[in-house]
Amino acid sequence: MSSSYSLYYWPTLPGRGEFVRLILEDVGAPYVDVARQPEGGVQAVLPFLQGRGPGHPAYAPPILRWDEHSLAQTPAICSYLAERHGLAPADPVARAQALQLMLTVMDVVNEAHDTHHPLGKNLYYEDQWEAAKENARNFVQDRLPKLMGYFERVIDRSGGPYLMGPEVTYPDLALFQLDAGLAYAFPRGYARATAATPKVRALAEQVAARPRIAAYLASPRRMAFNEDGIFRRYPELDPA
Amino acid sequence: MSSSYSLYYWPTLPGRGEFVRLILEDVGAPYVDVARQPEGGVQAVLPFLQGRGPGHPAYAPPILRWDEHSLAQTPAICSYLAERHGLAPADPVARAQALQLMLTVMDVVNEAHDTHHPLGKNLYYEDQWEAAKENARNFVQDRLPKLMGYFERVIDRSGGPYLMGPEVTYPDLALFQLDAGLAYAFPRGYARATAATPKVRALAEQVAARPRIAAYLASPRRMAFNEDGIFRRYPELDPA
Repeated sequence: MSSSYSLYYWPTLPGRGEFVRLILEDVGAPYVDVARQPEGGVQAVLPFLQGRGPGHPAYAPPILRWDEHSLAQTPAICSYLAERHGLAPADPVARAQALQLMLTVMDVVNEAHDTHHPLGKNLYYEDQWEAAKENARNFVQDRLPKLMGYFERVIDRSGGPYLMGPEVTYPDLALFQLDAGLAYAFPRGYARATAATPKVRALAEQVAARPRIAAYLASPRRMAFNEDGIFRRYPELDPA
Repeated sequence: MSSSYSLYYWPTLPGRGEFVRLILEDVGAPYVDVARQPEGGVQAVLPFLQGRGPGHPAYAPPILRWDEHSLAQTPAICSYLAERHGLAPADPVARAQALQLMLTVMDVVNEAHDTHHPLGKNLYYEDQWEAAKENARNFVQDRLPKLMGYFERVIDRSGGPYLMGPEVTYPDLALFQLDAGLAYAFPRGYARATAATPKVRALAEQVAARPRIAAYLASPRRMAFNEDGIFRRYPELDPA
């Protein structure tokens, strides 16, 4: 039941790889974070993108390998791991609803990324910061309150404390990471948006207190957010 | 095995609802396209968004209902339907790889949408067309060749003619719709980008020729692309 997993992700930012790491850590699955090993680095990731790795070619990291398998796309990796290791419901409909929630978390992650890259993922921030200011203003003022209000409503409807009720599922781990990232990138705007969503904050705190997650967060394996990642603290994108 | 499904989606554009319709049509599942019924309309969709519908609240349509269930998020709906009705592999790893492919198709759909809404999903196109021009230029020149080249490589690796080999799976239906949408929105840029991806075009043609899909495409149920949808033909975003 417990293969050893190999995770391939950019070594210098938490990014989308972190959503996979949180599941691996929470279920106690053995894994190697390949590009963060001394002999790893970006070189370890590139062959997969260029179609020279095994399995279905990946368009982008994170990529998970185990046995003879290879899998990409954060929600696909997370749902697969969660279903295999007990962090997803067994019922097919509830399983699809867990995926629905995971995908909605990742939609917010993508929108948060696009605040600093509104004109093109292939351009530098410095070449699009003016458009970024406008995108970020919309995101923080209009989108964040609606999106976090949605998760609050989901917790409310399920009875909580988690998105799907009394039991933790993998979208809760993703919502914890989203919450941490937004609080890092938009400390002012996010505090305003979440003043009305106490259940989201309580959920994030409960996830952080899970024993294996708490141990992980205190370990050197947990990377700090930085300005190469998805969640970037650019003060001009988070006005008072 | 065949419940009657109810699809809730904006009635005047194909949008993300179309990815769900293609699966329902291909498997021959009975369904009602609620907002397109005479008594439907946008009014039929709104209660779900406001958390007054049953099941997990949805953040956005499409929403699928059947029996006492409710499910949102295009890839979650599509993977659920495909797994239930024989358009997904049975093996858990292959099932996750099908989801990987579906998510990559939807990433391109999202990027195509963002070409005309680079500054904010809540703003009008007319208020962001200059940024849209720059986003679209990047998308057509840089992103499209890479993304379509990726799908070409996947078909090549699987042996084709479909993404996962000889058998059609639900990401093939989504790739067909993406191909149709890109050809509509960016007739010049997409022709350039796909000159090097004949297997993607052949796949789209094979999907279109499937008997139930062909009948659907010829029926009034198939909506034309238009400038309220994801794929919009704005000539200024598709220069020669």
